[in-house]
Amino acid sequence: MAREIPYKIYLDESEIPTQWYNLRADMKNKPAPLLNPGTGKPLTAEEMSGIFCEELVKQELDNDTAYFDIPEEIREYYKTYRPSPVVRAYNLEKILDTPAHIYYKFEGNNTSGSHKLNSAIAQAYYAKKQGLKGVTTETGAGQWGTALSMACAYFGLDCKVYMVKVSYEQKPFRREVMRTYGADVTPSPSDKTSVGRKILAEFPGTTGSLGCAISEAVEDAVSHEGYRYVLGSVLNQVLLHQSVIGLETKTALDKYGVKPDIIIGCAGGGSNLGGLISAYMGQKLRGEADYRIIAVEPASCPSFTRGKFAYDFCDTGMICPLAKMYTLGSSFIPSANHAGGLRFHGMSTILSQLYHDGYMEAVAVEQTEVFKAAEQFARAEGILPAPESSHAIRAAMDEALKCKETGEAKNIVFGLTGTGYFDLKAYEQFNNGTMTDYIPTDEDLAAGLSRLPEVAG
Amino acid sequence: MAREIPYKIYLDESEIPTQWYNLRADMKNKPAPLLNPGTGKPLTAEEMSGIFCEELVKQELDNDTAYFDIPEEIREYYKTYRPSPVVRAYNLEKILDTPAHIYYKFEGNNTSGSHKLNSAIAQAYYAKKQGLKGVTTETGAGQWGTALSMACAYFGLDCKVYMVKVSYEQKPFRREVMRTYGADVTPSPSDKTSVGRKILAEFPGTTGSLGCAISEAVEDAVSHEGYRYVLGSVLNQVLLHQSVIGLETKTALDKYGVKPDIIIGCAGGGSNLGGLISAYMGQKLRGEADYRIIAVEPASCPSFTRGKFAYDFCDTGMICPLAKMYTLGSSFIPSANHAGGLRFHGMSTILSQLYHDGYMEAVAVEQTEVFKAAEQFARAEGILPAPESSHAIRAAMDEALKCKETGEAKNIVFGLTGTGYFDLKAYEQFNNGTMTDYIPTDEDLAAGLSRLPEVAG
Repeated sequence: MAREIPYKIYLDESEIPTQWYNLRADMKNKPAPLLNPGTGKPLTAEEMSGIFCEELVKQELDNDTAYFDIPEEIREYYKTYRPSPVVRAYNLEKILDTPAHIYYKFEGNNTSGSHKLNSAIAQAYYAKKQGLKGVTTETGAGQWGTALSMACAYFGLDCKVYMVKVSYEQKPFRREVMRTYGADVTPSPSDKTSVGRKILAEFPGTTGSLGCAISEAVEDAVSHEGYRYVLGSVLNQVLLHQSVIGLETKTALDKYGVKPDIIIGCAGGGSNLGGLISAYMGQKLRGEADYRIIAVEPASCPSFTRGKFAYDFCDTGMICPLAKMYTLGSSFIPSANHAGGLRFHGMSTILSQLYHDGYMEAVAVEQTEVFKAAEQFARAEGILPAPESSHAIRAAMDEALKCKETGEAKNIVFGLTGTGYFDLKAYEQFNNGTMTDYIPTDEDLAAGLSRLPEVAG
Repeated sequence: MAREIPYKIYLDESEIPTQWYNLRADMKNKPAPLLNPGTGKPLTAEEMSGIFCEELVKQELDNDTAYFDIPEEIREYYKTYRPSPVVRAYNLEKILDTPAHIYYKFEGNNTSGSHKLNSAIAQAYYAKKQGLKGVTTETGAGQWGTALSMACAYFGLDCKVYMVKVSYEQKPFRREVMRTYGADVTPSPSDKTSVGRKILAEFPGTTGSLGCAISEAVEDAVSHEGYRYVLGSVLNQVLLHQSVIGLETKTALDKYGVKPDIIIGCAGGGSNLGGLISAYMGQKLRGEADYRIIAVEPASCPSFTRGKFAYDFCDTGMICPLAKMYTLGSSFIPSANHAGGLRFHGMSTILSQLYHDGYMEAVAVEQTEVFKAAEQFARAEGILPAPESSHAIRAAMDEALKCKETGEAKNIVFGLTGTGYFDLKAYEQFNNGTMTDYIPTDEDLAAGLSRLPEVAG
C-alpha cells in the first residue's frame, strides 16, 4: 500500500544519483554520429577535442557505457541545490476538476532558474580538471548562460557568453546576474567574430537565434588558447548529465508506488526532456515497462512536428559539425517567440532517433495558449513558470482535461524546468492582451529545409 | 552524538508547525499598545475592526496566549512551499576560511521570493473567512505585494496594492508578477487618495516611502465597503505568523544538536527578524537559554541604532494609529536606498521593547559593503540574495571573520529572507561601480524626530 503522498517529495542528499545514466546504451538504433562538415565523415575524438573538453568528448562518443560515475566534486555542488522536489499538483488538479494525478519535477529552485545547472557544473568541472583558462558558450533565454556563470564562478574559470540578441534585450536582468557571477556577456550576432559580422551583413536587424550564437561562441573558443566551447543542450553529454532529473524523479515516485502513465517535457534542444525521461525511457527501451512520452514544442519552432529527420548543421553559421536530427534547417530563424530556450532549429540526435523509432510522441502548442496555462498554473500552484516550462504545463493540462472527460485517474508527470522571473516582458504582453501567435507557413519552412546540406545518411 | 550535517536540512511536511508562537506571552514588559491618534487612548478592538479583519484584531491585541492554532486551510497552503530549508553554508565558510559554522534559513524558494507569504496567506484566509470582497495594502520592494497577490488569487479575493514609487520604477517586473496573480497595482504616492494627493502637493517628485503607501492603502480600505487593510510587517499579528520561520529553524537545528551562538536577521519593520528569532527568544525570555541576537539595518534608515524609542505614527500621512517603537519620525523619507523592504521609519513594537530591554543588539551597515557580501555569498552559495537579506549576510560574514581571528567555532545562524531576482537594477549599479552609500546626518535625523507626536508613554 502506497503511503499518502505529500505536496513535495524531497529525497535525502544521499539519494542524489552517484552515476549518470546513458540512454544510448539501451538504444537498438544508436543516434547517428556527428559528421565533420568538411569531409562528411564521422567526427573523431581528435577533431572534437579542439572544440570540447577531453572528458566530455569521451562522454559524447560513448554509445555503450550505461552508467558514468559522477565525480565527487560535482556531487558536492549538486548537494547545494539538489535533490529537486517532485511536486504533487493537488491545487491544479482541484481547479481542473480532473481525476488525473498530476506531478511535476521542479528544477527551478536555484539561481540559474532552471535545470541547466546540472550540466553546467559538470562541464565546468571537466574544463577545470583539464587545466583550461575558460569556456565560451551561447545562451538563449539566459538560463544556460546563468548556470554556466555560476559554475565557472565556483571553479574559478573565465566565462564568455554570447546571448541571443532578442533575449539580451528582453532580459537585461539576466545579463546582470551573469555579470554578478563574473561572466562576460555579448549580444549575438556581434561584431566580435567573423561569423557574427557575416550574419549581421546578410540579415541586418536580425534578433538572433541560438544557432547563430553557437557559431560565434565556437569561433571564439577555437581562436583563443586555453578555451573550449561548451553547450547547454542538444549534445549527448548534456543529456547524460541531465539524467539526474529522471533518475531522481523515478526514485521519488517509486517510494510512493506511483507509475507514470504519461511523461511530458518541453523540447528545445532536448536537454530537459532527455533528462526527465531517462530512467523511464530506459525501461521502455529494455522492454521492462511502457509509458506514453510526449515532447512539447512551440508552434513557432516545430522541429519534431514539422521538421525533417536529416543531417544538418547545429549552427546558423554552418561551422559546427553536422548532426542527424529533426531540423527546420540551420538557416531557419524563428520569430521573436518569447520562449527563448525553445528557439532552436534542431533537436538532440538521441531524441530525434527515439522519436523516429516511435518511442515518443510530439505536439506543438501556441504561445497564447501556453501563457493561459502558465497563469492558471501560477495561481493554483504558486510558482510562476518559465515560458519554456509552460509548454509542458499546457500539454499536461490538456491531458488532465481529457482524463476529466474519460474519468480516468491517470498519473501525469511533467518537467517544470524553471521559473519565469526573468520573463516578465512576455507576461506583461500577455497581461495586456497584446501577445500574438506565430505559426510559420509551409513556404517559410520549405525555405529553411531547402538549404539542408547534402550528406549520405 | 550529532549526525553529519547535510547542506540542506529539510523537514518533513508533517513537521510544519501546527501552532504559531506568540513571543509577547513570555515578555515581562509587554509591547506598548497602539494608541488612537485622536484620543491618545489605547485602540480598542472595535476601533481596529474598521481597518483590520476581526480575527487578526484578536491576534493583534492578545499579549497572553502563547500558542495559536494554525487553521488547516493555511497549513495546506504552507505545504506547497514549506518547510523551508536550513542550509549549512559550507562553501561560504571555506571561502572565508573561518572556523565558524554558518547556517541560514532560506525563505526565498517561492514565487513571492521571500518570507512574506507566511503572513500573506494567513491574512487572506481570515479576510475570506470574514466574507470580505478584498484587501488593500502597501508594498516596498514588492515582496509583500507579490505574496499578498498570490494569497488573494488562492482564496479568490480582490487585491489592491500601493507600491512605493521608487520600487515601482526600479522593479517594473514585480508589478507584472502581481498582475499575473490578478492584483491592481498603483505607484505611491498617487492621486487616488486624499492623503496621496496631499503628499504629492507637499513633496512633488518624492520617490515615496512605506509610511506613505500605508496611508494610501488604509484610506482606500476604510472608504470602500467590504475591504480591509492588511500589512506585511511591523504588526504583532505579522510577527505571530512569521514565527513559523523560527519554529522550523529550531526543529531543524535541534535534530543535529546545533545550538546557535549568534542569530542574525535584517530588520525593516521586523517581520523577518521577529519570526526568525521566535523560538530562541522565547527560551531567552523564559531564562532557559541564552543567545546573542543581532538586528541588522541599513545605515541609510537606522531606526534602532539612531532612532528614538517613542510613540509615533506608523504612516507618513499620520492617519494610522500611534505605536511605541524605535522610530526616525514618520516624516522621515529615506534616500532611494535599494533595499526597499528596509525603508521604513519605524519598527515592530515587540522588537522595539525587546531591544529597549536589552534582549538584542543592533548594527547598521552600508549599502556597498552589503552588496560586496551579496556578491561573495552568491558566488559561494549559488543563491543570488535580496538586498534586504544581504544586510544579514554582511553581519554574519563579519561575525564569521571575527571567529577567524579568535579561532572560535561559533554557530552563526542568519535569515536569508529572499532572492534578488527583481533587484538587478541595484546589482547593475554595483557591477558598474556606480553604487553609492548614504548616511543621514544628525541634522537630517533631528528634523524627522522633531515632529514626533506628543503622547504620554
